[in-house]
Amino acid sequence: MPLYMDVHTKIKDLTQEKLAEDHRKDLEYEQAEGVHFKEAWADPETGTCFCLSEAPDQDAVRRVHRRAGHPANEVYPVTLHV
Amino acid sequence: MPLYMDVHTKIKDLTQEKLAEDHRKDLEYEQAEGVHFKEAWADPETGTCFCLSEAPDQDAVRRVHRRAGHPANEVYPVTLHV
Repeated sequence: MPLYMDVHTKIKDLTQEKLAEDHRKDLEYEQAEGVHFKEAWADPETGTCFCLSEAPDQDAVRRVHRRAGHPANEVYPVTLHV
Repeated sequence: MPLYMDVHTKIKDLTQEKLAEDHRKDLEYEQAEGVHFKEAWADPETGTCFCLSEAPDQDAVRRVHRRAGHPANEVYPVTLHV
């Protein structure tokens, strides 16, 4: 399954609890789209979050995040990996 | 050790071989700075690359990438992780 990295920018009041809660919501909505959010890393200073997922396509990643209430600003198909 | 995500944009002619070679150079220069580049993901269409590293600080990440010949455009301390 293709890998995607999506980026959320300028998230307000970003804490470990908020990140965990947002990730939990993703996991709740992902199955219907055949997506799996594997990991996420975030910088609370700038409010930037990077989410790594497996998904059938880019739109599926966008739909899950939108339904979970936190649309992605950018989504990249990361076909190369080391 | 703190985690960092850095982003390279508009990389020309990005292939799996180029990514592996750039990563190899990072590994060559990282020890002197106490940095370790764990993983990297890249989208050859947009020439965007995301590098996850452990490092003492942000400047150490920048110095290693600069010495390896591919300076990062952005570096984020990702203190939150799920």
